[in-house]
Amino acid sequence: MPEQVTRAGVIGATGYTGAELLRLLVGHSRVELHAVTSRTDAGARVADVFPWLRGKTRLVFAPPDAETIRECDVVFFATPHGYAMAQSRSLLDAGVRIVDLSADFRLRSRSEWEQWYGMAHTAPELLAEAVYGLPEIFRDRIRTARLVANPGCYPTAVILGYLPLLKNGVVRHTGLIADAKSGVSGAGRKAELGVLFSEMGESFKAYSVPGHRHHPEIRQCLETVTAGPVDIAFVPHLVPMVRGIHATLYAEAESDADLQQVFECAYADEPFVDVLPAGSHPETRSVRGSNVCRIAVHRSLGHRVIVLSVIDNLVKGAAGQAIQNMNLMFGMPETCGLEATAVVP
Amino acid sequence: MPEQVTRAGVIGATGYTGAELLRLLVGHSRVELHAVTSRTDAGARVADVFPWLRGKTRLVFAPPDAETIRECDVVFFATPHGYAMAQSRSLLDAGVRIVDLSADFRLRSRSEWEQWYGMAHTAPELLAEAVYGLPEIFRDRIRTARLVANPGCYPTAVILGYLPLLKNGVVRHTGLIADAKSGVSGAGRKAELGVLFSEMGESFKAYSVPGHRHHPEIRQCLETVTAGPVDIAFVPHLVPMVRGIHATLYAEAESDADLQQVFECAYADEPFVDVLPAGSHPETRSVRGSNVCRIAVHRSLGHRVIVLSVIDNLVKGAAGQAIQNMNLMFGMPETCGLEATAVVP
Amino acid sequence: MPEQVTRAGVIGATGYTGAELLRLLVGHSRVELHAVTSRTDAGARVADVFPWLRGKTRLVFAPPDAETIRECDVVFFATPHGYAMAQSRSLLDAGVRIVDLSADFRLRSRSEWEQWYGMAHTAPELLAEAVYGLPEIFRDRIRTARLVANPGCYPTAVILGYLPLLKNGVVRHTGLIADAKSGVSGAGRKAELGVLFSEMGESFKAYSVPGHRHHPEIRQCLETVTAGPVDIAFVPHLVPMVRGIHATLYAEAESDADLQQVFECAYADEPFVDVLPAGSHPETRSVRGSNVCRIAVHRSLGHRVIVLSVIDNLVKGAAGQAIQNMNLMFGMPETCGLEATAVVP
Amino acid sequence: MPEQVTRAGVIGATGYTGAELLRLLVGHSRVELHAVTSRTDAGARVADVFPWLRGKTRLVFAPPDAETIRECDVVFFATPHGYAMAQSRSLLDAGVRIVDLSADFRLRSRSEWEQWYGMAHTAPELLAEAVYGLPEIFRDRIRTARLVANPGCYPTAVILGYLPLLKNGVVRHTGLIADAKSGVSGAGRKAELGVLFSEMGESFKAYSVPGHRHHPEIRQCLETVTAGPVDIAFVPHLVPMVRGIHATLYAEAESDADLQQVFECAYADEPFVDVLPAGSHPETRSVRGSNVCRIAVHRSLGHRVIVLSVIDNLVKGAAGQAIQNMNLMFGMPETCGLEATAVVP
Repeated sequence: MPEQVTRAGVIGATGYTGAELLRLLVGHSRVELHAVTSRTDAGARVADVFPWLRGKTRLVFAPPDAETIRECDVVFFATPHGYAMAQSRSLLDAGVRIVDLSADFRLRSRSEWEQWYGMAHTAPELLAEAVYGLPEIFRDRIRTARLVANPGCYPTAVILGYLPLLKNGVVRHTGLIADAKSGVSGAGRKAELGVLFSEMGESFKAYSVPGHRHHPEIRQCLETVTAGPVDIAFVPHLVPMVRGIHATLYAEAESDADLQQVFECAYADEPFVDVLPAGSHPETRSVRGSNVCRIAVHRSLGHRVIVLSVIDNLVKGAAGQAIQNMNLMFGMPETCGLEATAVVP
Repeated sequence: MPEQVTRAGVIGATGYTGAELLRLLVGHSRVELHAVTSRTDAGARVADVFPWLRGKTRLVFAPPDAETIRECDVVFFATPHGYAMAQSRSLLDAGVRIVDLSADFRLRSRSEWEQWYGMAHTAPELLAEAVYGLPEIFRDRIRTARLVANPGCYPTAVILGYLPLLKNGVVRHTGLIADAKSGVSGAGRKAELGVLFSEMGESFKAYSVPGHRHHPEIRQCLETVTAGPVDIAFVPHLVPMVRGIHATLYAEAESDADLQQVFECAYADEPFVDVLPAGSHPETRSVRGSNVCRIAVHRSLGHRVIVLSVIDNLVKGAAGQAIQNMNLMFGMPETCGLEATAVVP
Repeated sequence: MPEQVTRAGVIGATGYTGAELLRLLVGHSRVELHAVTSRTDAGARVADVFPWLRGKTRLVFAPPDAETIRECDVVFFATPHGYAMAQSRSLLDAGVRIVDLSADFRLRSRSEWEQWYGMAHTAPELLAEAVYGLPEIFRDRIRTARLVANPGCYPTAVILGYLPLLKNGVVRHTGLIADAKSGVSGAGRKAELGVLFSEMGESFKAYSVPGHRHHPEIRQCLETVTAGPVDIAFVPHLVPMVRGIHATLYAEAESDADLQQVFECAYADEPFVDVLPAGSHPETRSVRGSNVCRIAVHRSLGHRVIVLSVIDNLVKGAAGQAIQNMNLMFGMPETCGLEATAVVP
Repeated sequence: MPEQVTRAGVIGATGYTGAELLRLLVGHSRVELHAVTSRTDAGARVADVFPWLRGKTRLVFAPPDAETIRECDVVFFATPHGYAMAQSRSLLDAGVRIVDLSADFRLRSRSEWEQWYGMAHTAPELLAEAVYGLPEIFRDRIRTARLVANPGCYPTAVILGYLPLLKNGVVRHTGLIADAKSGVSGAGRKAELGVLFSEMGESFKAYSVPGHRHHPEIRQCLETVTAGPVDIAFVPHLVPMVRGIHATLYAEAESDADLQQVFECAYADEPFVDVLPAGSHPETRSVRGSNVCRIAVHRSLGHRVIVLSVIDNLVKGAAGQAIQNMNLMFGMPETCGLEATAVVP
């Protein structure tokens, strides 16, 4: 019996996240890329917009309301926030399962969502149903989910770094500090002055110190783990590179546990989390183009724990994790289409 | 009947070319990576030296004279020049076929080789046997070769750009100018002051204008195509990026041929040469991590032809082309293990 | 008697060229920065828009039609093309001298200008009066000019590289090839997708191969030098760095002249052209932030001449040269305000 | 009466710190660069080694023991640690004043120094005399010092960021976290594999998490300010850029003080510390090539204080601060030779 093929669609495929989905999906042996849409490029051949896909797909960008989207088994939203919540109900009713890479279904609290995103949430009834798509915590629920809220890039790196510590009760739940650094592709493919090469090149800065939308997302997930309040500071920075996130995570130890062992046990069976040997310093390039999160844990000055966590923001931080979720939802091997080794140097 | 597996060895696997071979070979479904050697890292686990290979291989670097090398079906030399010529005779006698990524067998003339590389050639009797491993020209001879001289990175980009023009007699054989630009990984993984990040960052320069070793290699191959003398200038430059070569090639037209058609015909059946639509400007990133050469041809001011040719210097310019050659030598599909889409952005 | 101070104004000071003018003018001991205008930032304090100017100026961006502009001794246009030609007549009538950093007055032929820039020229009567602001050729005319057309960045690097060869008749006037590479700041400070960090980073490409506006400007100036037709190809490329231009220039020798001596003689008295020792390869960083053009000349294969010429596109290629022109126009020492050493590394 | 000129010498002038000293000293109107030494380049002309200094100096590198060094009024050590302590006694006896840019005299405790630097300290009697050269704290002592220990780059950025908070008692002295990021030039001009362009490009990592030599230096200085123990974590990272340090500093507030006002008051009279408006995010490029430290302070979630502090590691973090110290020691205006505006973009 031949393997079953999953028909996938991508809505909003001309941003970096969408382009990365296309890159990964054209190489996925059990997926047929059935429909891709774009408001700005509807009518254009995908391979004309993204020349590196020449020879990989003959698809043409459809308009966002294309009927072909409803013929898919799974649809990925790679849209700005506000789009997925408008279209999800109708797609779910048509039997299409959804992985939303935007932020629309990441926060369980409607009011908190509306406060951070500055608009009304138009599908609040789906917030409870949506499953937060971090397989390392919610794998079982993802398998059966109709609607998966794919995590943000920073939350993925930060949560995977704190998870073993909080789950095992070895650090305090207050005074957490997540100092995170991202390549510029995290800012998206939008024509904005601030992310020009000549603005970002040979420079480094923090941004959104007063508040970033990934902050409540991180806190919500960590509080699920601890079943209680978590106090965490989150400061993002922009690095003059295209891909990669490095999270440097600080916590106060509450036990003498062997931290290396705590991490190795926590992730022993995880296909995409790699705990480095004691004393390591992961480089973002070591995961470039791959779906792996590499982590190192250090104990400093006796009482302080420092975790270093790196991902490729476009893969494990977005498109790769979305495909990992799809694999789970459709009973495919979790690593299918995600086996590539990082491209280094 | 199960597919046959080719046992491969890599000698000198700790440079960039060697590391790239490992990255590609661990993902090659019909190859078993059997032995890797390194003078500097013998005894260390490959995955400790290159953490991005964690989970991909359990191999340990052997010393260069390891017996396991002789058990391989094919051995890749990723060594500085001078090594392959010392060991090839013995390996060939043991029935091992060789793809040499160094320069030892690229020039047919012993005296020219010795002049450019500044040492005596110790295996001159193999120069005539060695096949220049550019499949787009020498595919048939590569299939049966025992010893393949894998082309240099610049020569690959330059020759593929000029080939359709010279083969079809549409440009003069004099006054050719190849202005080539390379990412810094082309300079190798050596602790040298000149290629420090702080020396190369945010700067651009030409180098080796008085003469570069890839110059005679380019000329020799082009003269094979034209069956007569070729006059070409070659100027290499260093670009502040890690991977990628861009060759800008100038020639004087001698016919009114439709150049776009000349190129499309020349490469219609080539799996790894992509002729872009008329008017295009290929970006090096469009081939990053992939084995593709993308080419655009322009006619300017009536009589001048300008060709733009890009490759990833570590893939089509080195390790990828070496695997393409191995595939040919062992009767595997030519694209096996080389199907990856470029990683963009 | 105190030194006289020149009152300067900058129109369109929020692009990279304008910002660089401000950087240099606030450090010029004999200039008072009297007025700066901006359509987009009128009303904002200069030091709020460009924080690196905090403590250097208290000026506020005025609207483009501010009266204070007419109070200046000299006005720099750092505007897109089309603006300077609209305002120059009125300013000249008010006794204000002009250095136009846009392209409006660079071509002597109105029809050629209109063809390349795609709009009608509204001040054609000034084309004949405007002096091309390359001091190394037109120093005397610049001293008395009312209207100086500041050269483009590529033309500056290319012309200075060819000048000694053409002036001394040592190369042919045909078959010239200028392969030029620029940092991304040359593309300007505009919110465009193509120059995002994530589009330009870790990549290299040619652009405008079918035709670039600096091509007729280069040819016009070289033909002034040769007093006859010049045939030249010009291909620009984008380098993943912010500042710097490297021009690699090819020509066919027509004499056995000592090229090193030709260049050293030609530029012996030039304060801003530095001929490097024979065999050198100038780096763009060696002129970063400085007004110097560094040049090396090579003779290859007997008959071919290769010149390497580097400038900082924003200094000698724009703002610095504009100030050099102002210094000449107002009888100040030519190097005043331009003495800074390049910032390396 | 003509201005007096200070005769300066630089020992070990071929690293990045030494080169930056040369860049700044050749532009200092009241300094005569009298002697520069280098073990590796003795006999070579400075302008041949550093072509960007062509036309700026005719000096030749002398050997380290050159007699001309003793003729200087002030000598800068830009050497690896271990050199200054060997030569300082003799120079001081000869009446030469010293600014040591190495770490030899930064720690007051001999045993702590020996523990961190792994060698015996051969001039312990000078540790008490040496003045820590951070003018914002020790200006008066610097004026009369014979021997100034120029601060490390990280300590400068970190201490200036914490100083107003600790001096005014508005934060706790425990739980401080300094997450610092540096451009690669901070690693020095040494031929080491780890800092190759192809190792550092397009990647980001932490390093020395178990312990960095700047940690005790930071703690010692902060404890001078608080006159009591300070508990601080310090984690350095490498950014794929050449110049710049960004320190992100965390502390727990102990008062409701107006933090913006605290900082503005603290630095109101400082020529080289610029407190940005509330809500700002300083970029490292805003200080590139300049001696300025730009700082922004944020209060997050009520009780936590976040300070962002940027410097150019080679200027305010090394050579610029050394010259600021020299200016103080010799009664010159503190800003002399350090007025340059940052080079942006």
